[in-house]
Amino acid sequence: MSIAYVIKIGGNIIDEENKLSSFLKSFASIEGKKVLVHGGGKLATKLADQLGIQQQMVDGRRITDAETLKIVTMVYAGYINKNIVVQLQANGCNAIGLTGADGNMIRAHKRQHAAIDYGFVGDIDSVNTELLQNLLEKNITIVAAPVTHDGNGQLLNTNADTIAQEMAKALGSIYEVQLVYSFEKKGVLLDVNDENSVIAELSPAYYAELKSRQLIFEGMIPKLDNAFAAFQNGVCKVIIGRAEELQQLIAGKAGTTIVHE
Amino acid sequence: MSIAYVIKIGGNIIDEENKLSSFLKSFASIEGKKVLVHGGGKLATKLADQLGIQQQMVDGRRITDAETLKIVTMVYAGYINKNIVVQLQANGCNAIGLTGADGNMIRAHKRQHAAIDYGFVGDIDSVNTELLQNLLEKNITIVAAPVTHDGNGQLLNTNADTIAQEMAKALGSIYEVQLVYSFEKKGVLLDVNDENSVIAELSPAYYAELKSRQLIFEGMIPKLDNAFAAFQNGVCKVIIGRAEELQQLIAGKAGTTIVHE
Repeated sequence: MSIAYVIKIGGNIIDEENKLSSFLKSFASIEGKKVLVHGGGKLATKLADQLGIQQQMVDGRRITDAETLKIVTMVYAGYINKNIVVQLQANGCNAIGLTGADGNMIRAHKRQHAAIDYGFVGDIDSVNTELLQNLLEKNITIVAAPVTHDGNGQLLNTNADTIAQEMAKALGSIYEVQLVYSFEKKGVLLDVNDENSVIAELSPAYYAELKSRQLIFEGMIPKLDNAFAAFQNGVCKVIIGRAEELQQLIAGKAGTTIVHE
Repeated sequence: MSIAYVIKIGGNIIDEENKLSSFLKSFASIEGKKVLVHGGGKLATKLADQLGIQQQMVDGRRITDAETLKIVTMVYAGYINKNIVVQLQANGCNAIGLTGADGNMIRAHKRQHAAIDYGFVGDIDSVNTELLQNLLEKNITIVAAPVTHDGNGQLLNTNADTIAQEMAKALGSIYEVQLVYSFEKKGVLLDVNDENSVIAELSPAYYAELKSRQLIFEGMIPKLDNAFAAFQNGVCKVIIGRAEELQQLIAGKAGTTIVHE
């Protein structure tokens, strides 16, 4: 099986033009099949503010009403996605930017929750592996925006970490997949205030222990849950680390690697 | 050769939700290979107004400065394009929404003009026929937004009528292409105030005559120039007419058809 990379970049990189363009240069230089999944960044919030649209947050998650979905679609699927694609093209990487609606790439349903109405937020049902394979085999790099659809005409705002997990798992049936969650930190830190406390290898048992000691918390938990879910479902390698160190992460020389035990 | 349709929809349809969704239902029902090219509509202007961005117009053309390009990318490539794609998916049409940057579909260069700096406006150099063919042969319908790129990292705002012409010509080398320019009028009118004065067949000589008699003017001239350029360069059939009559246009029962003489 040939290797395929699924790489997620977080919002903080997207917000900084210079960091983004040096990340994209590094990403473009990766040989072989690859998928880039991007999050949102602060631009959507900024645009909503400028337009006087109030943002609701519950448990750190954006409630996506109709107006917010419109902004999400404009900023994530439009501005950010095309800005990434055009830069990758300039770096010799034949990228194609897609939402889950495009080519029916990712189907989802509106999140059902007993207590909270998240609005137009999608939980993923399926990934169109055939489409991904068709594009990757033609040396086309997929750039996925965090927007999916329900098949009945509704776009849905969808967590990019989860999209990366689901795309990696789907590709795991055809390729030897390496999944990289790149963000602003060097990896999973034992001490959140010490960038040099990177945990090199993280097993499910160690993760459970760190959670119970409350050394891992907040946004890191859903990210790691996604990482473990991918690793336990056919993804060969999952690495978490700094976007600026992408090449080292892939070479296994930096970041946190998920391990069985 | 099998048939491929390239259909352009104008801005006025995009601005009206009900008209757009009934058009898309009709479009989705067309059998076989098809491309939809959409323009912009009033949403970009509205958003620019809301954000306090001044729009400059010269000779009826928008001058695209950096801020306007950002809006164009958000609205055309994001909101409008994905709104069309998600509706086509709901109508059983496997659509994929692309700008010219995606998959390097359309290359262009920044317009050079002795007197006017149009800003980030693109004139088309080439269409990636291989990409189009690859997608169409997999029964994927392409939805093209009026944004291209220069290969050096610059997105460019590009006239949708011209995109339709260039895509139709490129596909003309592989398929029997029918190009439809659909808009708010029943076709090319002999009397602009009389919707029943549709010219059924328009030849280059008749077009020249009508222009010299100033019966055809303004926005209709670049549209017809695009229509004739396509027809004279390998496109089998070019029809101009009302978006609401899409099926009749294709059946040759409505609109204006371009003819040799």
